[in-house]
Amino acid sequence: MNIAIAQSGGPTCAINASLVGVFKQGLLTEEIDAIFGSINGIEGMIGDELINLKSIIRTNEDMELLRQTPSTVLGSCRYKLPPFEEDPDVYEKILATLNTHRIEIFIYIGGNDSMDTVVKLSAYLHHIGSDIRVIGVPKTIDNDLPITDHTPGFGSAAKYVAATAQEIIRDSSVYSIPSVTIIEIMGRHSGWLAASTCMLRANGEEAPHLIYLPEASFSTTQFIEDVRKEMAKHQAVIVAVSEGVEPGGDEGELAEFQSGATDVFGHKYLSGIGKFLERLVAEQIGCKVRSIELNVMQRCSSHICSKTDIDEAERIGRHALRAALEGNTGQMMFFRRVSDVPYAVTIEMTDAANVANLEKMFPEKWISPEQNQVTDAAIGYFLPLVQGEVDICMKNGLPVHFQRPLQMR
Amino acid sequence: MNIAIAQSGGPTCAINASLVGVFKQGLLTEEIDAIFGSINGIEGMIGDELINLKSIIRTNEDMELLRQTPSTVLGSCRYKLPPFEEDPDVYEKILATLNTHRIEIFIYIGGNDSMDTVVKLSAYLHHIGSDIRVIGVPKTIDNDLPITDHTPGFGSAAKYVAATAQEIIRDSSVYSIPSVTIIEIMGRHSGWLAASTCMLRANGEEAPHLIYLPEASFSTTQFIEDVRKEMAKHQAVIVAVSEGVEPGGDEGELAEFQSGATDVFGHKYLSGIGKFLERLVAEQIGCKVRSIELNVMQRCSSHICSKTDIDEAERIGRHALRAALEGNTGQMMFFRRVSDVPYAVTIEMTDAANVANLEKMFPEKWISPEQNQVTDAAIGYFLPLVQGEVDICMKNGLPVHFQRPLQMR
Repeated sequence: MNIAIAQSGGPTCAINASLVGVFKQGLLTEEIDAIFGSINGIEGMIGDELINLKSIIRTNEDMELLRQTPSTVLGSCRYKLPPFEEDPDVYEKILATLNTHRIEIFIYIGGNDSMDTVVKLSAYLHHIGSDIRVIGVPKTIDNDLPITDHTPGFGSAAKYVAATAQEIIRDSSVYSIPSVTIIEIMGRHSGWLAASTCMLRANGEEAPHLIYLPEASFSTTQFIEDVRKEMAKHQAVIVAVSEGVEPGGDEGELAEFQSGATDVFGHKYLSGIGKFLERLVAEQIGCKVRSIELNVMQRCSSHICSKTDIDEAERIGRHALRAALEGNTGQMMFFRRVSDVPYAVTIEMTDAANVANLEKMFPEKWISPEQNQVTDAAIGYFLPLVQGEVDICMKNGLPVHFQRPLQMR
Repeated sequence: MNIAIAQSGGPTCAINASLVGVFKQGLLTEEIDAIFGSINGIEGMIGDELINLKSIIRTNEDMELLRQTPSTVLGSCRYKLPPFEEDPDVYEKILATLNTHRIEIFIYIGGNDSMDTVVKLSAYLHHIGSDIRVIGVPKTIDNDLPITDHTPGFGSAAKYVAATAQEIIRDSSVYSIPSVTIIEIMGRHSGWLAASTCMLRANGEEAPHLIYLPEASFSTTQFIEDVRKEMAKHQAVIVAVSEGVEPGGDEGELAEFQSGATDVFGHKYLSGIGKFLERLVAEQIGCKVRSIELNVMQRCSSHICSKTDIDEAERIGRHALRAALEGNTGQMMFFRRVSDVPYAVTIEMTDAANVANLEKMFPEKWISPEQNQVTDAAIGYFLPLVQGEVDICMKNGLPVHFQRPLQMR
């Protein structure tokens, strides 16, 4: 039999490691012949754009390089599968691709939108009596998928964000005048990544002095009061703010910083809360102030990825293929944390419908009563996810990446 | 005798390594007793705010940790020493501090503004018949000091910028629609850092497809034409642009993106060329476009510093103290490149007046005739500067930094 793999949604540092996991397990499985990669997520299945992965991943060195290459080697998409009733044609096209290439297993690596595809496609195949199996592998730097303890990609993003925040703390602390530095961190609706900066306390840092999350209540008046309080204690105040924070009652003011554009899933392209707060501090406090957007570096800085994250991403990929081979379909693989110290997770599966289109918020119990900090109790959750460094392959003093074949560029 | 060290100007990854170099050489020199650090650059000398460095740097581990800690452990300043005729009082205050603590050598680590201080202070001391010596040690991520082949701090910044640009290239290349990604890179007047992204070609990258420097001519019309040409060849066009690039004839349009604020040296706080070009592409081409500002991460990302840079920064610090002990004053240490392959530099000295307030531009010979790219000939200049990785000390999965004593925070 043959199998196919696709990657979807926003890039992460770990999504190629999950692909390597599926691929390696495929190589080890006698009954599997060809391992196809679908170009640009589900779009490649619709348009029959597949690539023979064995022709581009040839050696153990290739696999290791791919594991440490950020973003999606097969390309990605934001395409949302329409309901079958609306557009049966799309489903039939996918089926045709599956049949043409004798694909019996399709592994989809992605976030909660991609799990929607897993649900719809597996239901369709079941409905027509096909035994082609569809399994989802989670990934997102946002860590906002339900059921799973955490998502592959999050640990590496958190490691980059915390390490970078620590360097920004050093950078901000050199002048003899009071200053405020605002670090804007990704997280459309959930503040996991911004919250993870609390980890720095484990290494003796006091900053970030304030952490604002979309899950907490927020007002510009309270924000300015918070900053003033911290300025009384610290020369250089550091603020971590999740991009999803929306000032209550000031939406109009914030909106002028934002494009208002939405993607095909109806998500707003948020940006600008950092710049908005920067202007607020400049106007109302009048001190030296700077905002810093960590931008896409949060999801692609493989040079400081978490070994735990990369290893787990590969492992969950292997498990996904095994689950499919055992006859499962319409499932998403997930991590169950068994213990914090020593850290241990098991890999299990759940109906993808339990994850599709749903979000897991940062827990209220870990938000300070003042709504402007993360409690120490959260540190033990985050720390295991950033442990270990991957031995990065360097050439000419720079990291080397797996190069996509020319036809895919 | 006693000596004092101070750090000035914008932070870099290597300025603490130069301090360690002076400090280590001080420990090895029998006639030196106390090694003082001046808090916040020359301000600490004026206000008699010194710290006994032996009391905070106690072990080899401390020195290693300080070498890999970004920013200035002694704080910094942007204070410009007034001409003696205008304010003799300031000079007398510095002299009083020097005499109180029996300081016979003052080492100032900084950029071209700091060399102005070296010139003025050494001239004053010479004028009053004092044999207290003042020596400058260069540092700046901008690489824009004359005489020296390159500046400590530049190699680490270039390594971060190139590695990050490469990761952004991966990140930008995943979707099936055409896109333009604009990376805004520091460099007030000179484009060395933006130009250094040409190094990626040594590792087989084609991008950045366009590199714009303040040293080249620039027009928005030509820019849009350049982008269209590259879009015909590449799905994801990557543009590196130096923050100092100013669109000719469009200053009014760019100005509304910029604050117009100036620092005490009369430098404009530039920002916004990236956002400006992003809007231009959106308006005139209408494709997916994103601008990314690498911000302060360019100067503080020690976790990916260049070992060559850090080692050289330490070495030039040691040489500075030796030069002072030999009786020199009013000099700045510099690197002379003896050979590209194998890479070799010697450390020499020059009158600080040859550097003070002057800038070294990126050479015209390395700019493409189209004014939108850096030629291959520049690669051999940049590559040696980013070689090697420092073995970063990690704790809890995060880099550890040297912590400044409480009285200095």
